[in-house]
Amino acid sequence: MIQVDLKNAQIKDEELLKYQEQVTLIHQKLDANLIHEDEFCGWIDMPLKYERDLNYQAAWQTMNTVASRIQKEVDVLLVIGIGGSYLGARAAVDMVQGFYNKKSPVEVIYAGNTLSSTYTAQLLDYLENKEFAINVISKSGTTTEPAIAFRLFRNLLIKQKKSKEVVKNRIIVTTDSAEGILHDLAKEEGYQTFVIPNDIGGRYSVLTPVGLFPMLVSGIDVEKVLIGAQKAYQECKTDKILVNPAYKYAVSRYHLYQEKNKSIEVLATYELQLQMFCEWWKQLFGESEGKDNKALFPASVVFTTDLHSMGQFIQEGSKIFFETVISVKKPNHDVPIPELEDDEDKINYLTKYSLHDINLKACEATIAAHSGYQLGNVPNIVLQWETMDSEMFGFAAYFFMRACAMSASLLQVNPFNQPGVEVYKKNMFELLGKK
Amino acid sequence: MIQVDLKNAQIKDEELLKYQEQVTLIHQKLDANLIHEDEFCGWIDMPLKYERDLNYQAAWQTMNTVASRIQKEVDVLLVIGIGGSYLGARAAVDMVQGFYNKKSPVEVIYAGNTLSSTYTAQLLDYLENKEFAINVISKSGTTTEPAIAFRLFRNLLIKQKKSKEVVKNRIIVTTDSAEGILHDLAKEEGYQTFVIPNDIGGRYSVLTPVGLFPMLVSGIDVEKVLIGAQKAYQECKTDKILVNPAYKYAVSRYHLYQEKNKSIEVLATYELQLQMFCEWWKQLFGESEGKDNKALFPASVVFTTDLHSMGQFIQEGSKIFFETVISVKKPNHDVPIPELEDDEDKINYLTKYSLHDINLKACEATIAAHSGYQLGNVPNIVLQWETMDSEMFGFAAYFFMRACAMSASLLQVNPFNQPGVEVYKKNMFELLGKK
Repeated sequence: MIQVDLKNAQIKDEELLKYQEQVTLIHQKLDANLIHEDEFCGWIDMPLKYERDLNYQAAWQTMNTVASRIQKEVDVLLVIGIGGSYLGARAAVDMVQGFYNKKSPVEVIYAGNTLSSTYTAQLLDYLENKEFAINVISKSGTTTEPAIAFRLFRNLLIKQKKSKEVVKNRIIVTTDSAEGILHDLAKEEGYQTFVIPNDIGGRYSVLTPVGLFPMLVSGIDVEKVLIGAQKAYQECKTDKILVNPAYKYAVSRYHLYQEKNKSIEVLATYELQLQMFCEWWKQLFGESEGKDNKALFPASVVFTTDLHSMGQFIQEGSKIFFETVISVKKPNHDVPIPELEDDEDKINYLTKYSLHDINLKACEATIAAHSGYQLGNVPNIVLQWETMDSEMFGFAAYFFMRACAMSASLLQVNPFNQPGVEVYKKNMFELLGKK
Repeated sequence: MIQVDLKNAQIKDEELLKYQEQVTLIHQKLDANLIHEDEFCGWIDMPLKYERDLNYQAAWQTMNTVASRIQKEVDVLLVIGIGGSYLGARAAVDMVQGFYNKKSPVEVIYAGNTLSSTYTAQLLDYLENKEFAINVISKSGTTTEPAIAFRLFRNLLIKQKKSKEVVKNRIIVTTDSAEGILHDLAKEEGYQTFVIPNDIGGRYSVLTPVGLFPMLVSGIDVEKVLIGAQKAYQECKTDKILVNPAYKYAVSRYHLYQEKNKSIEVLATYELQLQMFCEWWKQLFGESEGKDNKALFPASVVFTTDLHSMGQFIQEGSKIFFETVISVKKPNHDVPIPELEDDEDKINYLTKYSLHDINLKACEATIAAHSGYQLGNVPNIVLQWETMDSEMFGFAAYFFMRACAMSASLLQVNPFNQPGVEVYKKNMFELLGKK
């Protein structure tokens, strides 16, 4: 479902194959980690667990039942979480449901991902007369942003509903299975809970209830998401760089970093709906690789809009980056260009195309402009996606997680920790006088 | 209204003063260009024109009259434009009005900034039963994205309204004063027009009708925007680096690029509402400076949300960038943290703060974490903004335009052209068979 096309990346197959030995060793290590739950490798065979594991099957049933009920009861699902606790769900909802989608059963809104008082005040005001439910997502419950948001929006729900029973039915907690402030609070209050597995870190958690429950409520066909992830799992079973698409991508980007002195990877899409997918990707790669003063800086652009802002830089600015272009063959919707009798706007020559045809031509033209020798001279890795639907989301999510684990391992950093994130938190707790 | 704080930027005043001679020369040149209309310097004294120039005053009156009428007639203003033809207005509307703002008289939606058929199809569907007006913004009318969108959404309006007169009153065209496809079409159909001045390029046009008319319809106090811009104009009259805040910022970033080998500038904000301001900033600097294989790559993050994604990289990844942090003293709204009797979520220690207090502490903590020696070691330029209101928007817009003209000139590139943007367009027109 994803073809990795290196025609415009200035990389030959022979160059990739130089890394085969390293890749094979890492592949075996990743596979072996399947049995070490403490190594955060639980995501690797996650796509199979909903078929094989009775606990997962039970959770799946409950998620579906609760999601159907919530869809009937509310206008808005408020997802409270930050980083890996919301980016995956948001990436999926934006990509599959799009914007201004009159057919979505529930509007999904995000909170607890900011300390902005202006955003929070306006959202509190907006929800005042709306029917809403809360899905709060946090492993420990101690992360400041979601903790504050949960207190504020739960307060609003209690004021609005007055009945303890109704409030109870409108709060769903996704957290640790056995301990933590949020776990204890949910138990005390009798809230519905879903489990964040111990062997999966935040940025690898999109295929757990962290991502799947909001997707279900938004109306996404989550069974198809899992089917897509299973297909990716199968395609990524081999250690052969030229056969495993995730490894082909991982090795290509590592090669451009290591051998061609590229410092930035710019992920480019031609669909506004993929912007949050790019944000999810940034966390995945930035947090997995940005260690020991190393790694590609992950940036993203949405074309063609950003061709009219970052386009000039990409074409003629400093050559410190390469592009990874996502090109989607089949869009979720297409639009014909109507004919105008008098052609007063002079675009009747476009009526033989659909809008998506034109988008694909723009993509082709841009790859040639940016990568062409003596033009942009920017390597372009092209990822050809078949579709932009729920199955594709599952496939792409797994594809990039697998690629990231390989890529970070090639860089010789731990793909699963994030020690640097604690520094500002420590400072902040000191400033706030937390005991 | 903006203080440039270099305490955490690893830059001393003496280092800045080394550039004084260069800055003075460029400053004089910029000032002299006031009289050369063909040099695209019309934006420099733009803040004064609404007071001094009768044409501008007449346009101002008409904009206000039309905006008031549109506010009464419609639910949605559809702004059709790409790059400099929409980013400024969107930056202002998001920053000042925020999200989920029940008090905004009209919802502003953007089109013609993408070739995504999925986005366009969903938006066509969404507007089908809504009262909407169109403000199409394009100098020539030949840019493909807005031309297609205008044809599609005008079609929808004609289908919806059936009356030629009603349709005529719902379309406002912002374009060239004398020629071009869009100018001719508007004249033919009798649409209301506003003028894009010949001496101002797209990315410097936010204080012309390009930006001001959508702001007016959205309910922004545009008089205050102009007052803010005038204040910035006055503060930027001096060539003295340590007195002129825009030049202080411009020279600091140039110094970090030229002398400290930084390749990326990361603009960091703590307000989700400033995200589009960052996009506007990216176009301004990326398109003005990205030439001759030079310039800082402009990127942006919104904290604290991105501390949970890009935070790890910034703290411990490769040290090829510096941060420019926007810290806002007074938010548009604030929220108290309520006390919980049983403190079951363990954050009662925060009730002595407002949410904005906590956001400011997070900012302070993060600057220390990222810039601190042996910690992040990332230079942090801090821009202290007084507020986030309409006056501040005008001030900040002018501040950054002035800084950009200086910064690009120090880099010895032309701040006002964008030759590289044409390459992909030429390819695309060939692929589409345009004659």
